[in-house]
Amino acid sequence: MAAYNLRPIGHVESPLTDRAAAPRQPDEGAPDAWLVFEDRYAPALDGLTPGTDVLLLTWLDRADRDTLRVRPRGDTDRPLTGVFATRAPDRPNPIGLHTVRILAIAGTRVHVRNLEALDSTPILDVKPLLTPDR
Amino acid sequence: MAAYNLRPIGHVESPLTDRAAAPRQPDEGAPDAWLVFEDRYAPALDGLTPGTDVLLLTWLDRADRDTLRVRPRGDTDRPLTGVFATRAPDRPNPIGLHTVRILAIAGTRVHVRNLEALDSTPILDVKPLLTPDR
Repeated sequence: MAAYNLRPIGHVESPLTDRAAAPRQPDEGAPDAWLVFEDRYAPALDGLTPGTDVLLLTWLDRADRDTLRVRPRGDTDRPLTGVFATRAPDRPNPIGLHTVRILAIAGTRVHVRNLEALDSTPILDVKPLLTPDR
Repeated sequence: MAAYNLRPIGHVESPLTDRAAAPRQPDEGAPDAWLVFEDRYAPALDGLTPGTDVLLLTWLDRADRDTLRVRPRGDTDRPLTGVFATRAPDRPNPIGLHTVRILAIAGTRVHVRNLEALDSTPILDVKPLLTPDR
């Protein structure tokens, strides 16, 4: 089943280390962070531009993959909801999806604004925001 | 490295079978399709609603994972560009990201509009479009 193995291409460097204290969304106080890519992926970064927004895909390595229903935002007043109808990190394939503004690029290090991912989170992919001609 | 193994949660049923003939974007003639989830994930679907748009994450199992630079849309007039600055399917972790409208839900089968993924493509995740309260 090699086809279903992920290859982390880098990791997040962030002051966030505690899942319980981390913001749930980037507009809730997420700090700036560095995306540190492995050197071998430098060619794949060609064309990324400071000042633009990109989609960042991460692997939420501290998630519980056996959770199928949650109370959104941990609110006990809300009904149990299927994880596919929520953004909860606990889910069968805990892929984090983040829209981040690129602030600066230094070799294979990319500085981004307002990222709610924890320090050392593996990076899976970067994609442009969807535009018809890409 | 079990933490980096994906667990496909279902697959796409679509009339699209040929990558070369498939539309590159959903607004380029992508057909309606069925998302067929494994029965064990039925609880995780609770809360999905016909008429709403969701993000669908797939594993583009026919992609070349060693490609790091491409000419966008295969256009030989365009310069080689890093895959992280394009939506090309060929990339180290070929995760497909699709916004689809849910047309109907029948048990663990979900009918969606305009999906450019090929028949039998593995499904990884479904997420709501980001709203502040999810």
